[in-house]
Amino acid sequence: MSTVPTAETNIYTRRESQVRSYCRSFPVSFARAEGATLTDADGNAYIDFLAGCSSLNYGHNDPDMKAALLDHLQRDGIAHALDMHTEEKAAFLDAFEHHILRPRGMDHRVMMTGPTGTNAVEAAIKLARKVTGRRNVIAFTNGFHGMTLGALALTGNAGKRAGGGVSLPDVTHLPYENSLGEEVDTLDLIETMLSNPSSGIESPAAFVVELVQGEGGLNAASCEWVQGIARIAREQGALLIVDDIQAGMGRTGSFFSFDHMGVEPDMVTLAKSLSGFGLPFACVLVRPEHDIWKPAEHNGTFRGNTHAFVTAKVALEKFWADDTLRNQIALKSQVLEERLHNIAARIEGARIKGRGMMRGVDVGNGELAGQICAECFRRGLIIETSGAHDEVVKVLAPLTIPMEQFREGLDILEQAVETLVPFGMAAE
Amino acid sequence: MSTVPTAETNIYTRRESQVRSYCRSFPVSFARAEGATLTDADGNAYIDFLAGCSSLNYGHNDPDMKAALLDHLQRDGIAHALDMHTEEKAAFLDAFEHHILRPRGMDHRVMMTGPTGTNAVEAAIKLARKVTGRRNVIAFTNGFHGMTLGALALTGNAGKRAGGGVSLPDVTHLPYENSLGEEVDTLDLIETMLSNPSSGIESPAAFVVELVQGEGGLNAASCEWVQGIARIAREQGALLIVDDIQAGMGRTGSFFSFDHMGVEPDMVTLAKSLSGFGLPFACVLVRPEHDIWKPAEHNGTFRGNTHAFVTAKVALEKFWADDTLRNQIALKSQVLEERLHNIAARIEGARIKGRGMMRGVDVGNGELAGQICAECFRRGLIIETSGAHDEVVKVLAPLTIPMEQFREGLDILEQAVETLVPFGMAAE
Amino acid sequence: MSTVPTAETNIYTRRESQVRSYCRSFPVSFARAEGATLTDADGNAYIDFLAGCSSLNYGHNDPDMKAALLDHLQRDGIAHALDMHTEEKAAFLDAFEHHILRPRGMDHRVMMTGPTGTNAVEAAIKLARKVTGRRNVIAFTNGFHGMTLGALALTGNAGKRAGGGVSLPDVTHLPYENSLGEEVDTLDLIETMLSNPSSGIESPAAFVVELVQGEGGLNAASCEWVQGIARIAREQGALLIVDDIQAGMGRTGSFFSFDHMGVEPDMVTLAKSLSGFGLPFACVLVRPEHDIWKPAEHNGTFRGNTHAFVTAKVALEKFWADDTLRNQIALKSQVLEERLHNIAARIEGARIKGRGMMRGVDVGNGELAGQICAECFRRGLIIETSGAHDEVVKVLAPLTIPMEQFREGLDILEQAVETLVPFGMAAE
Amino acid sequence: MSTVPTAETNIYTRRESQVRSYCRSFPVSFARAEGATLTDADGNAYIDFLAGCSSLNYGHNDPDMKAALLDHLQRDGIAHALDMHTEEKAAFLDAFEHHILRPRGMDHRVMMTGPTGTNAVEAAIKLARKVTGRRNVIAFTNGFHGMTLGALALTGNAGKRAGGGVSLPDVTHLPYENSLGEEVDTLDLIETMLSNPSSGIESPAAFVVELVQGEGGLNAASCEWVQGIARIAREQGALLIVDDIQAGMGRTGSFFSFDHMGVEPDMVTLAKSLSGFGLPFACVLVRPEHDIWKPAEHNGTFRGNTHAFVTAKVALEKFWADDTLRNQIALKSQVLEERLHNIAARIEGARIKGRGMMRGVDVGNGELAGQICAECFRRGLIIETSGAHDEVVKVLAPLTIPMEQFREGLDILEQAVETLVPFGMAAE
Repeated sequence: MSTVPTAETNIYTRRESQVRSYCRSFPVSFARAEGATLTDADGNAYIDFLAGCSSLNYGHNDPDMKAALLDHLQRDGIAHALDMHTEEKAAFLDAFEHHILRPRGMDHRVMMTGPTGTNAVEAAIKLARKVTGRRNVIAFTNGFHGMTLGALALTGNAGKRAGGGVSLPDVTHLPYENSLGEEVDTLDLIETMLSNPSSGIESPAAFVVELVQGEGGLNAASCEWVQGIARIAREQGALLIVDDIQAGMGRTGSFFSFDHMGVEPDMVTLAKSLSGFGLPFACVLVRPEHDIWKPAEHNGTFRGNTHAFVTAKVALEKFWADDTLRNQIALKSQVLEERLHNIAARIEGARIKGRGMMRGVDVGNGELAGQICAECFRRGLIIETSGAHDEVVKVLAPLTIPMEQFREGLDILEQAVETLVPFGMAAE
Repeated sequence: MSTVPTAETNIYTRRESQVRSYCRSFPVSFARAEGATLTDADGNAYIDFLAGCSSLNYGHNDPDMKAALLDHLQRDGIAHALDMHTEEKAAFLDAFEHHILRPRGMDHRVMMTGPTGTNAVEAAIKLARKVTGRRNVIAFTNGFHGMTLGALALTGNAGKRAGGGVSLPDVTHLPYENSLGEEVDTLDLIETMLSNPSSGIESPAAFVVELVQGEGGLNAASCEWVQGIARIAREQGALLIVDDIQAGMGRTGSFFSFDHMGVEPDMVTLAKSLSGFGLPFACVLVRPEHDIWKPAEHNGTFRGNTHAFVTAKVALEKFWADDTLRNQIALKSQVLEERLHNIAARIEGARIKGRGMMRGVDVGNGELAGQICAECFRRGLIIETSGAHDEVVKVLAPLTIPMEQFREGLDILEQAVETLVPFGMAAE
Repeated sequence: MSTVPTAETNIYTRRESQVRSYCRSFPVSFARAEGATLTDADGNAYIDFLAGCSSLNYGHNDPDMKAALLDHLQRDGIAHALDMHTEEKAAFLDAFEHHILRPRGMDHRVMMTGPTGTNAVEAAIKLARKVTGRRNVIAFTNGFHGMTLGALALTGNAGKRAGGGVSLPDVTHLPYENSLGEEVDTLDLIETMLSNPSSGIESPAAFVVELVQGEGGLNAASCEWVQGIARIAREQGALLIVDDIQAGMGRTGSFFSFDHMGVEPDMVTLAKSLSGFGLPFACVLVRPEHDIWKPAEHNGTFRGNTHAFVTAKVALEKFWADDTLRNQIALKSQVLEERLHNIAARIEGARIKGRGMMRGVDVGNGELAGQICAECFRRGLIIETSGAHDEVVKVLAPLTIPMEQFREGLDILEQAVETLVPFGMAAE
Repeated sequence: MSTVPTAETNIYTRRESQVRSYCRSFPVSFARAEGATLTDADGNAYIDFLAGCSSLNYGHNDPDMKAALLDHLQRDGIAHALDMHTEEKAAFLDAFEHHILRPRGMDHRVMMTGPTGTNAVEAAIKLARKVTGRRNVIAFTNGFHGMTLGALALTGNAGKRAGGGVSLPDVTHLPYENSLGEEVDTLDLIETMLSNPSSGIESPAAFVVELVQGEGGLNAASCEWVQGIARIAREQGALLIVDDIQAGMGRTGSFFSFDHMGVEPDMVTLAKSLSGFGLPFACVLVRPEHDIWKPAEHNGTFRGNTHAFVTAKVALEKFWADDTLRNQIALKSQVLEERLHNIAARIEGARIKGRGMMRGVDVGNGELAGQICAECFRRGLIIETSGAHDEVVKVLAPLTIPMEQFREGLDILEQAVETLVPFGMAAE
């Protein structure tokens, strides 16, 4: 296995900020990537079970998106157009309407924000506050929504919050489903708190919720809970904002994590895999009655990344025009669940978390989870942890990973666990 | 001139949020772009004096950057790698060190943030608060720093601020040079206020300042003022953060707007033209002693856009390895200044603003400025306004625009003014 | 019964702010008062079951306090001395040490604040934030702590909070015992939330808690719950602040509401009955290790009301030197409980609330509770409601009320209920 | 001179919080007081040039107020009535209307708040925010308005602010007249900043201003400046709130500090000398069109201190029914000014500050000012400092001090200065 050569180490040590992180877990220099495979500068190949934290749901360098982007570049298509009209934007919107919105009967408008998830979240809560004239926003235990101050206020993680250096007001954090133990009915609790005019909790502008908490430990909300939150939001005169940045674009089985959940959010934030190709791109879907922005009231230089329009359109047409991908995800999800059950069975107290292709094993503590990921990397698999204590080994393979390669990656994971927990539960 | 066809109008009306803005001023659909020329779907060409609000300092689709990106794509170079090491990142850092930092004796570290200016600003103020243990940040009248809550608090514009829907605490806005009239010594004023322990202004963590205010009306700070602010910051134990997102990358004559100003900022925020190609990319330069981040304490999915590394490296090597571009900017700046003086002379009370290739004419009110820009567009020139009252017609041509085309654009601007102010000052 | 004469009505209508409130429920003009009896300008007497919202625990114009205050006035004792030393302050502190602190083994220091409860609460949370270096303070559902912005942030009532007109940050409201129904273990819930580093709830500087919630509906916390909160506070590195402004000075049976609860708060806020005579007076008791104030770091013109020192000293010596009052309270509390049970039994779903001489009946809704109080007033009894929906008829008789008069007041209450709920439960 | 006996020292050391302050400058125990004379436990007399920080404008224990209070007590008048009607409240309102409001054509309503200045300020800004629907409040350099969080946000002093431990948002501090030097036109500056929509300063709900800054160094605003602020407030749609807590009740020559200034504030906050006797009492005067409170929307246990109504009524009738006191103040103010000029002339760079009977000498630094006050105390005069650096020796004698005693006190001050600055200016 290649490690970063001295010279390159030097440039990072000399010139890159200490804030860098993933490169510390995977200390090699990557050279190219295709599908679910990353290759380092020495030619070593790695199976990618991280997929850009779910930004590469269709794998690296999908050939059709690549071809479209090459073509766009070769004919001097626009790279940057602020939010002016381009043929690429129109084509993206057409495809998004045709393949995503219209089949679901969604009449949402698309707001292009700065091309990061946190910018989309900031735009969404701004708009919810404008629509309702209220300040408070409800967020949930273990939620992660971004690092700019408005989104950071919604984020649960204490370390991230402390980085802000200031108070993070106008947000109330309430317990996510099962975060207080399975015996506590959090819907009841939330409803009781919000309906008591002396609870000290201001009437909310919005509820911002992930249906599977990507950073918070792959907690997957049940259909009943999500519907309950939607109902409480409605009763409170608050908007329901689904943050589908990590869980959307097929990750949990369908394009949106809330498909088949029986709810229609007032807003949806999308980013990560939205471009399909790993390019920066984010948007907010907004019900038309809430789209009360004045022109440029929220703006930004890179909203509407034209290269991302090009690839996103291909992604929509290639993967969401029929049920092929959905069926593949369903199949792989089943394989994943079975394999993770076996792996979890080796570790006392371990349990599997998540939904669809967004699953992992809670191994009980961050130390063991970190060791497992490190051992995987030594064996050629890139995989990371999640959760409040980094206690979940999280599988975020590309949805398009070939089944054989998927099993190969899961084999490595299982072997890593066997190595670190040699006798496992079976031996006891 | 082509207008947006009905079908396309429909997709925007049906599906794009009301927040869209530039497309309202320039209601055509753009198809391709090269250098300083944008071409719409009907084949009409426009000279681009907006340049993505200074995101396209090297013009559209620079052939060398394009070639490098095509090559990167064709060999399946990485598109998305979180903040892992890639050869492209190393090459970018090498080039940035070699062509930018080392020649200036700057030992700053590069922090890749989410690829928008506002994310870079958020990271910078977070870090300044962490370094100093203070909360308050000084920003200036007419400053613009972004739209996420932390950066929005620094932004002066009332309409943008109101969009936030909540209080924007922990920032004190102080007067920019000349913003109280030329007779008021704002340095004196700021120093007096900050040195009075009963001023009610908390000791600042940082001063965040643009040396030329891009959105605020092209106000250009003098060398003395900038040095004064640097001195006051130092005396107050606060960091000096130069927001060079719009004014950097050559716009004012040199790579940084603070080159030759006699100050060395503690941090610099860069975005817009940093990629060279109009791709989303942003970073913060941080003096090593302030680079006290814990790994991932500020993170984000798209920090370090690999495609942008590829093009940015070419931009650095092509344009900043010698003085060619600098000399061209100097020459064009002189042409620009002369022509704008002539134009300003036609409008009573008008005066020219800005520095280098970031210049404009304050025509006294937003209505006239808007009419001038609209008339320019009818004549094939894309140009926009700036300022608290949109009263400045702002020229942000690509730095690389051929001189002939530059003059052609300025001719259009002059003709537009002649049309709208037929008798001008000369007649009076 | 006298109503306010026209002339007097005029002065209030002409000159007193609309914010006035109790005078709307009891629209007569009071002329004098003694013990538990208020007399209006026409000579009508009223039994006082409101007692200045528990500010008159020893009744109106206690003869011994009156004598001491007359003597003080006649000999030109100090009325106002800022926080300089006076013999009266020393005598008060001596008495407070001797009769209150020393018998309990409390080594707390006495901080004189501005003479209102809200000022004491503001001082306490300031000090807790200073001691811990943290910002967040935990307050509880239905809590009431005052109306200045710092204390208002702790207060649960939505109407009061809305009056602030700004966000009320740096406070987290958590559920009080039983506020989520008896089946939810709020201690468990609070502990789980605070021990999850991704809960989004900042580490607290303090817990501020009333052991019986005077305004919030006479919810009385159990010994176990109070000890649990004390334990969680300790484990979190947070201070325990008992707000004993309404429940202290004997109201719940002993001087402090936390006596015999097995906890020793880090701070205690006192006001209301502290002076004994209804004079403005407030203080914070602070454990010596937390008394890290710099001189005048928190100050105020009227901290240490000398007249109040005079009467408070008498109150301490007269009522707290032995067990006489305590025994009387115990006896009357028992009478009160029995009578309220009978009254509650007449109203479907009604239940009694509170502890000691701080008890009432939750009659299910604010309309009925208001009607009962109005009917009582017509019958010569002054009594008010409490609770998030004003649904509790609250008995706050002077602790020193003669038993006969106490029973007379309770008779009136019972008759009022009989009048309004003629058939009651018994008839069904 | 008596010092505090050991036993008494013990009780303060043992039991009073470190926050105590004035007792440190004047370490004796006071026993009684009459007029402008304080007497300690050993019978030593002191002339009082502190007067409870202007809470004792009519001196200690005025015999008429004392008689009225004795009478009230003896006939069991109400001590505490919440905000119910009492004959004493009506009588106070009548007198206030008759002697203060009506002669000035003021139709303001009186809002009784918690009986401290900070509570009145909190109520005033709450109401201004409610009336305007805005959040931001303008306060001024060197202003002091109280120590609870809402009022503390208006206060300039860094040490006091730091004591809050949290951010103090929703207030903008702008320069008071001459605080930037006499050459800077602060009205111009304020108007320019507030009329620039990109200043970053939110549209204000109110301007809160002291016409003479009591704690901030006896800065006295000119008539023109006050009118200018009133005009700017009006133009901005903001309310003008005069904080007359220290400067009102005759201190600057007339009942209100703004009499004869040509402005009529929307609100006025009063406390300190309002009761006349040094008893806790505060109120807000509100123009009727702004008195939009809901009943109890801002409340408090001790609003409307009945004992204070009794004494305040006497004060109004005794001192404000004719021009006697006003004439005396004018005469003494002249004496004071002359004497302070002589004193200032002895100290290089010293200058006199303030207006009316609220005057002092800025001796250039806090050390010398402190020494002068300490020397005065040794000589039997109680006097304190003021200002951002405690650099002003501040004379706040009772307005009613006999002329002979006044001169005696000023003699002591002069002697103290002579002792400490033996050669003075004259010698140089």
